[in-house]
Amino acid sequence: MGFIASVQGTLLARPHRHLFTSILPTRFYSHMAKAQPHPFCLTFLGTASAVPSSTRSQSALALRNGTDTWLFDCGEGTQRQIQGSNVKMGRINKIFITHLHGDHIFGLVPLLAGLLNGSGGMVDEDDPREFLNVNKPAVEIYGPLGARAYVRSALAFTQTTLAQAYVVHELRFPDDPKTGDFTNLRKHHSESPSGRNIQQEDGVWKDFLKDGLVSFSAAPILHSIPCVGYVLAEDSLPGKVDPQKYIPELKRTGTPMTAMRDIKEGKRVKLNDGTILEGPSRRPGRKVVILGDTYDPSAIAALGQDADLLIHEATNAHLPGLDPRTKEEDTHELVERRTKSRGHSTPQMAGAFAKRINAKALVLNHFSTKYSGNDDDPPSKAIMDAIRGLAAGVADCEVHCSRDFWTYSVEVPTE
Amino acid sequence: MGFIASVQGTLLARPHRHLFTSILPTRFYSHMAKAQPHPFCLTFLGTASAVPSSTRSQSALALRNGTDTWLFDCGEGTQRQIQGSNVKMGRINKIFITHLHGDHIFGLVPLLAGLLNGSGGMVDEDDPREFLNVNKPAVEIYGPLGARAYVRSALAFTQTTLAQAYVVHELRFPDDPKTGDFTNLRKHHSESPSGRNIQQEDGVWKDFLKDGLVSFSAAPILHSIPCVGYVLAEDSLPGKVDPQKYIPELKRTGTPMTAMRDIKEGKRVKLNDGTILEGPSRRPGRKVVILGDTYDPSAIAALGQDADLLIHEATNAHLPGLDPRTKEEDTHELVERRTKSRGHSTPQMAGAFAKRINAKALVLNHFSTKYSGNDDDPPSKAIMDAIRGLAAGVADCEVHCSRDFWTYSVEVPTE
Repeated sequence: MGFIASVQGTLLARPHRHLFTSILPTRFYSHMAKAQPHPFCLTFLGTASAVPSSTRSQSALALRNGTDTWLFDCGEGTQRQIQGSNVKMGRINKIFITHLHGDHIFGLVPLLAGLLNGSGGMVDEDDPREFLNVNKPAVEIYGPLGARAYVRSALAFTQTTLAQAYVVHELRFPDDPKTGDFTNLRKHHSESPSGRNIQQEDGVWKDFLKDGLVSFSAAPILHSIPCVGYVLAEDSLPGKVDPQKYIPELKRTGTPMTAMRDIKEGKRVKLNDGTILEGPSRRPGRKVVILGDTYDPSAIAALGQDADLLIHEATNAHLPGLDPRTKEEDTHELVERRTKSRGHSTPQMAGAFAKRINAKALVLNHFSTKYSGNDDDPPSKAIMDAIRGLAAGVADCEVHCSRDFWTYSVEVPTE
Repeated sequence: MGFIASVQGTLLARPHRHLFTSILPTRFYSHMAKAQPHPFCLTFLGTASAVPSSTRSQSALALRNGTDTWLFDCGEGTQRQIQGSNVKMGRINKIFITHLHGDHIFGLVPLLAGLLNGSGGMVDEDDPREFLNVNKPAVEIYGPLGARAYVRSALAFTQTTLAQAYVVHELRFPDDPKTGDFTNLRKHHSESPSGRNIQQEDGVWKDFLKDGLVSFSAAPILHSIPCVGYVLAEDSLPGKVDPQKYIPELKRTGTPMTAMRDIKEGKRVKLNDGTILEGPSRRPGRKVVILGDTYDPSAIAALGQDADLLIHEATNAHLPGLDPRTKEEDTHELVERRTKSRGHSTPQMAGAFAKRINAKALVLNHFSTKYSGNDDDPPSKAIMDAIRGLAAGVADCEVHCSRDFWTYSVEVPTE
């Protein structure tokens, strides 16, 4: 206890200047814009496994939905990748961590420092930046047990001051403690105490969060350490209304035009003359599955069924004749066994999972640093094309290999 | 204690597979190459204050001395900056941290993971990468109190495995505890227990380390949190020997040629006929002063006197007419007061300190993110030229503004 007590008692002591109560909402509540569907624009900010290279940064993926931006994983350098991308940092309001390996989380605290106007304090006076802006909701972080302790300890030891609040909600596994913070460092002055410890039910975290039209679920996926995949499921969307089909009927019967609101929602409406009009059938909402590192994501299959998009890692591949680093004794089976033993997947494994959940599209990411992300270089492009081909040969859908700064959109369905 | 106990007892438990004894030297011992002077090549890997920009990464500076590379500070993204530079990552054997603010340390643990063959472990079997390579000496990290705890907690929470050892030596301030690790997380499997807690004597840490010809000292410099500056002082070097002056004399008197060794070292040698020959006077070794963030580095002035090179921060400057962000009410005094209140310096303050210690050259770094590092852009270059000019107007030596990837060499003196 001695040194932790020192940490708390001297160097890192900060008065709790701010009460975290309901004045600090930890969710964005729906407003009108949230009720409208927008394209889901996914920008790959980092597509490397483990060590970055000149062409690939560590894992990070931004999903823009209207004015919201949600970040999935945050490897080292994510802040700078955002600066070079079409993603606006200030719009990030939720960050989802798949697992605590450094290449997925090393950029999180630097990002918070940039996003929340972090500073190193003042000499001989109070730093106005230390006073939390209570009008802004806390940036929400979701991740497995330890995410809260990691962020708290990094902020404490670097003596970082933030001008906005953050909160860490943890997706707790059955073997994890059900309560507590996994550290006895006391809360940072900008950490909201409303962080939830979200328990699994029936082996998954179903609908642990709702934001506008989107429900977030998660499930454990197998890796060398506890790891989760996320499923974003949109509410069903109104069907397309043909006004010529309805408006003359409303006019003819003198029914108020406000009935169109129900019709647009797909409801049945009784006109003034007793006629029943039925709105168009609602369209199913979109579904996006974003996995962390895994050698077996079976537990997320049910939640992810019929996804419009699956993001699946493909760390290593057997590419004889193309990849000069291929060993003579290597076979597909040997490479797959080695890849699995490190908790990872081959393109074929990703393709098979896309087929299993009937995904409409598969995007591969998290490539070994030996696979360059420079598509302008013909040998590199040949390798990425081959990786794509290995997955496409198994999957029954379109397949892409991601590279840094590439954006893929899941459009609002038109019918 | 509960959760720290959990950290130690379950999720993060790792057998101490390796004994750290003298088989794991924590210093590089001198060998022949170390006795030869080499140019000191300083490559600026990151020159931004606080937040990175497209042209400047967070603080990091590599000093190459022969086959050794010493790193000073390690902001986020340093690993990737190294990949894009002329610095070889595998040669880094010592890392010096000036203070614990994130923009100087966020890249340290990612760098260790890359440098020491970090991995995320294996599924169902032991990872051969977990077994420490005991033939390689530990990478040494030096920094203020908390550096050890920061590295340990980041490695623990990210469950990172390293294949080589590291050690953290802390420069303890008078108010710091004299012993202990500042955390009760137990040591990482790759952390050498030989980390020293180095106490100040007479207000400085004089000669706390010797590597080959170079002695390292440090002194506290004033900032918003505890911060140090480093002084690298080279032993005096042999004078230039003119063989024509000595060899005929040795031959004439039949004195063994081995006497040349003493002559080269500047010693007096008695020839076989009793004649005394005096070797050339030894030349003073070089001195480099590398400061962290500061608004007053006075305490390092004596150690840094007559430096060949001073690296000094210059975070903010008053640049009316040049910097469009200049406020109408701003004056030099106001900008300097604001800069000091945040623990930083103006170019004039850097120039004045260079003059005070009689430095031969001054290089400025740690520029506010508003000062672009793109010298190909005329307005940006004009601003950096003006900053340089403000310092040069006060300093009595050559002055440069650093930018990312720029290398400055302190050559071996020729006479």
